[in-house]
Amino acid sequence: MTVDVDFGDDGLVPAVAQDAETGEVLMLAYVSPAALDRTRETGYAHYYSRSRDELWKKGGSSGHLQTVQEVRVDCDADTLLYLVDQEGGACHTGHRSCFYRTVDGDEVGEKVFDPDDVYE
Amino acid sequence: MTVDVDFGDDGLVPAVAQDAETGEVLMLAYVSPAALDRTRETGYAHYYSRSRDELWKKGGSSGHLQTVQEVRVDCDADTLLYLVDQEGGACHTGHRSCFYRTVDGDEVGEKVFDPDDVYE
Repeated sequence: MTVDVDFGDDGLVPAVAQDAETGEVLMLAYVSPAALDRTRETGYAHYYSRSRDELWKKGGSSGHLQTVQEVRVDCDADTLLYLVDQEGGACHTGHRSCFYRTVDGDEVGEKVFDPDDVYE
Repeated sequence: MTVDVDFGDDGLVPAVAQDAETGEVLMLAYVSPAALDRTRETGYAHYYSRSRDELWKKGGSSGHLQTVQEVRVDCDADTLLYLVDQEGGACHTGHRSCFYRTVDGDEVGEKVFDPDDVYE
């Protein structure tokens, strides 16, 4: 039985991407029904960009793909958890995780690539 | 330097709560500026309930408090990550994590309490 995901008024749910091996929380992005379908069909994480207003394959331009091991859903079925194998780094800043700073501004996350080498 | 969190149009940001010790992703909830202030002042996770429209101390009624070790912010400063010590279970269903099911409906998460014993 597939859980009936509650996409809400805007047709999107937040999805947390977590490294399936290390447990590191990598990023949060939004997912549309089509993005979830594409993720499940292809095994690669897809999201929906609210700023660009389009379906988006993670790593499509950077090569930093996320292979999805499992998709979980929370108790209210309005949030997803993608357990992924992350190629390279999840963050466009070059960090492994987008959560590379404390709210006090201390940098605690690992930088794994130079964005100038990856994005034109 | 404190990062200037972008609370957006609705004045809320999503916050992921992660077990600081095991790395398990426990839940996602929303945080207002006041909820973030209370979290930082008290060391206990606070959120903002969109359904009840009020500031909410996690575990205030259940006793299942979250002691916050660190608050992180993502690259766009519009999502938070709470690294917490979770008392009992995070989920009102009695599970340790709200993400106790796959999207296929398989139960993969640990049940740690009986909600009938905790909620009146």
